[in-house]
Amino acid sequence: MSDRIEINSAFIEQVVALIESNNSKELSGIIADLHFADITEIIEYLSDNDAHILFDLLNEEKSAAVLIELEDDTRKKLLSELTAKEIAEEVIDNLESDDAADLIGELSEDKKEEVLSHIEDIEHASDISDLLSYPEDTAGGLMAKELIKVNENWNTLQCLGEMRKQAENVKQVHTIYVVDDNEKLLGSLSLKQLLLAENGSVIKSIVTTDIVSVNVNEDDENVANIMNKYDLIALPVVDDLNKLIGKITFDDVMDVVKEEAEKDYQMASGISEDVESRDSVWELTRARLPWLLIGMIGGLLGAKVIGVFDLENNFELAFFIPLIAAMGGNVGVQSAAIVVQGLANDSLKMENLFQKLIKELGVGLLNGIICSVVILGAAFGLGYGMGLSLTVSISLLVVIVFSALFGTFVPLILEKYKIDPALATGPFITTANDILGLFIYFMIGQAIL
Amino acid sequence: MSDRIEINSAFIEQVVALIESNNSKELSGIIADLHFADITEIIEYLSDNDAHILFDLLNEEKSAAVLIELEDDTRKKLLSELTAKEIAEEVIDNLESDDAADLIGELSEDKKEEVLSHIEDIEHASDISDLLSYPEDTAGGLMAKELIKVNENWNTLQCLGEMRKQAENVKQVHTIYVVDDNEKLLGSLSLKQLLLAENGSVIKSIVTTDIVSVNVNEDDENVANIMNKYDLIALPVVDDLNKLIGKITFDDVMDVVKEEAEKDYQMASGISEDVESRDSVWELTRARLPWLLIGMIGGLLGAKVIGVFDLENNFELAFFIPLIAAMGGNVGVQSAAIVVQGLANDSLKMENLFQKLIKELGVGLLNGIICSVVILGAAFGLGYGMGLSLTVSISLLVVIVFSALFGTFVPLILEKYKIDPALATGPFITTANDILGLFIYFMIGQAIL
Repeated sequence: MSDRIEINSAFIEQVVALIESNNSKELSGIIADLHFADITEIIEYLSDNDAHILFDLLNEEKSAAVLIELEDDTRKKLLSELTAKEIAEEVIDNLESDDAADLIGELSEDKKEEVLSHIEDIEHASDISDLLSYPEDTAGGLMAKELIKVNENWNTLQCLGEMRKQAENVKQVHTIYVVDDNEKLLGSLSLKQLLLAENGSVIKSIVTTDIVSVNVNEDDENVANIMNKYDLIALPVVDDLNKLIGKITFDDVMDVVKEEAEKDYQMASGISEDVESRDSVWELTRARLPWLLIGMIGGLLGAKVIGVFDLENNFELAFFIPLIAAMGGNVGVQSAAIVVQGLANDSLKMENLFQKLIKELGVGLLNGIICSVVILGAAFGLGYGMGLSLTVSISLLVVIVFSALFGTFVPLILEKYKIDPALATGPFITTANDILGLFIYFMIGQAIL
Repeated sequence: MSDRIEINSAFIEQVVALIESNNSKELSGIIADLHFADITEIIEYLSDNDAHILFDLLNEEKSAAVLIELEDDTRKKLLSELTAKEIAEEVIDNLESDDAADLIGELSEDKKEEVLSHIEDIEHASDISDLLSYPEDTAGGLMAKELIKVNENWNTLQCLGEMRKQAENVKQVHTIYVVDDNEKLLGSLSLKQLLLAENGSVIKSIVTTDIVSVNVNEDDENVANIMNKYDLIALPVVDDLNKLIGKITFDDVMDVVKEEAEKDYQMASGISEDVESRDSVWELTRARLPWLLIGMIGGLLGAKVIGVFDLENNFELAFFIPLIAAMGGNVGVQSAAIVVQGLANDSLKMENLFQKLIKELGVGLLNGIICSVVILGAAFGLGYGMGLSLTVSISLLVVIVFSALFGTFVPLILEKYKIDPALATGPFITTANDILGLFIYFMIGQAIL
């Protein structure tokens, strides 16, 4: 039994040393024992040149699997060194149709055509070019063509025979789908049902017709929600006529879920590109700079707002600028995050916009009243004087209520106009609420002081 | 084929109307056609009383499945109305060992004992009490005892016969595990291999020994990372002697991944409890108040910091308080988020603390220099005078570098002391960096102006 290996820096150093001393024999020995997911991880830590050398030592099946698992930029670099013929014969031939289509979809138009023309298995080529026609973020873009399907009129023995034939093209058998003579999806058969059925039973008599399927045009996030909700390993995909045309497996969807969660988290944290801590200083800087520049514009606008008021004669107002700005930002982010999460897991659909804003008004008022009472006592107790304490307290209430509504409203509006609502969290809401909060604070300050 | 139903507010209203008019016949008809995941969703939207009435109409199998899927507080309410005997006979009997253990684990000590004593199937009871001994956040806490296991010395026909027997206790067959005479895990057999093997082959000759397994004490987040990395539907769990003692399935892990992602996202957004937009105004307020109060303490400290300096004669310094505070917060959150994500997906292990801080210093310097040059030009261009513009520019550089290091350092230290590093993102970093940023800004301001 091959144990999982710990990919640590000592191991990477060992691999690099072997590559650089041209010891391809020992290297081949090591990678032969490794799972492709481990090889993928190692390659991500190597220099471009070392990555190439290691990649060239892999057998076809492993190199195909590794390519699919790699990050986009690493894959692009490795693919650029292969001819269209090599990609078709060494890579595509060893991939299931969905992975093959994803990989070909990343190539330039010219190379795409060339690779497709070099695929020898005509059925595989036509499956792939069929899959290429679906948008990436739909069920069609996620599904694979390979699946095991049996006719309702067969008996279990025929079924096993046919499955044996079909299984040769399928990497992993998840579920057996049952169709009628017109290829329409009728239901499914689990390995368990097949095992427990009497020899020779007709499929029709043991099929489970209670099956969840999706239309090929369904949005990929909905596909993920459906598979998650119903705990499905595989989800059959049908066309508008309910004909079975593909299946989506749990690992494709796990990737969608992970990517969505990471993207939302990064957006909420003000990171504009998909980066990881192992990326270069420049990549990390580039991913962080856009929001910082927007934050600076917000800061300059804030300076303008403050400048409008007579600060010279009310300079104590400046003491609470950080408090007002921070609280507006915090409340806005909290509200927006709850909306973004509700939109992602589909739990928001029960209330209309008006009901949501009323509820958020309640939450904002409750938080606002508690905070403004606390700050009134604290500020006055710390000796800031009644006028200033009252100004801060009233402003805080108004800012919290306003920020809560703003934080709820913006992501809902973005969603309505098909813009990713997660864009509303993080620096955007913080910056906008900073400026508006300051404005409210100084207006109230001028009225009271 | 039963289609997925859209659970919308009209449908919920229809259900409520049927419950309140005591029309249990029509109600039973509707829920008989529904998947348990849909019934779960409906129950979450009902009042406690209506939820009870609907729940009582479910058959045993469905009510057990629904209970497992419900949110903790709803499950608790429904379970509180059942006697220990009912829980044992109607619920636990219809659950696999892992779900059964999770559910019993939530009961009070007394009720736990009582429920266990009422379980009639002795093997099921001992499986459950065995699982109860593992901490919730380990492989042991996630695994189920039910699995299909065959001996390496059997042939495929024996194997099918034994599998038929075992399959009756297992809901879904994912993988067939192969063990030796001492129950030690040797490898696995897929349905595909079994289908393609010649009748009568010895299992030993067709087993795949290249199998990934985890020790029963492995941390649950690592389990999720392993299953995700190797795209596994099911992962066998072994004890220290490599004996096969359970299996973890993809749906358990999908829940771990989702929960972790949601928790991190909520922490980064300053939400301290697991809430959803459908929760009550009070629950939503309670989840948001703690960080707001901490933000207020930060704001009061900020006021103190500003009060220390001679603002009256340098009141223009106040103009850029929002900018400095916001930028410190934004940079800190960005840095912390990248570390938190790196820790979660295990991609940070290659560098030591010093290397990480050096890299972050580079990112901070690069971002800082760009931002400070931009702000110097912008502030001077907007007529703020060279002294103030220079103060803001230099302070910004120092604040960005410092916040980047601070944002990297804090989550790493928390991780080291086994505290959730995600705690470092969101309001905590923002608040701390606000105060420190102000201090730096006024120090530099006093030196220059």
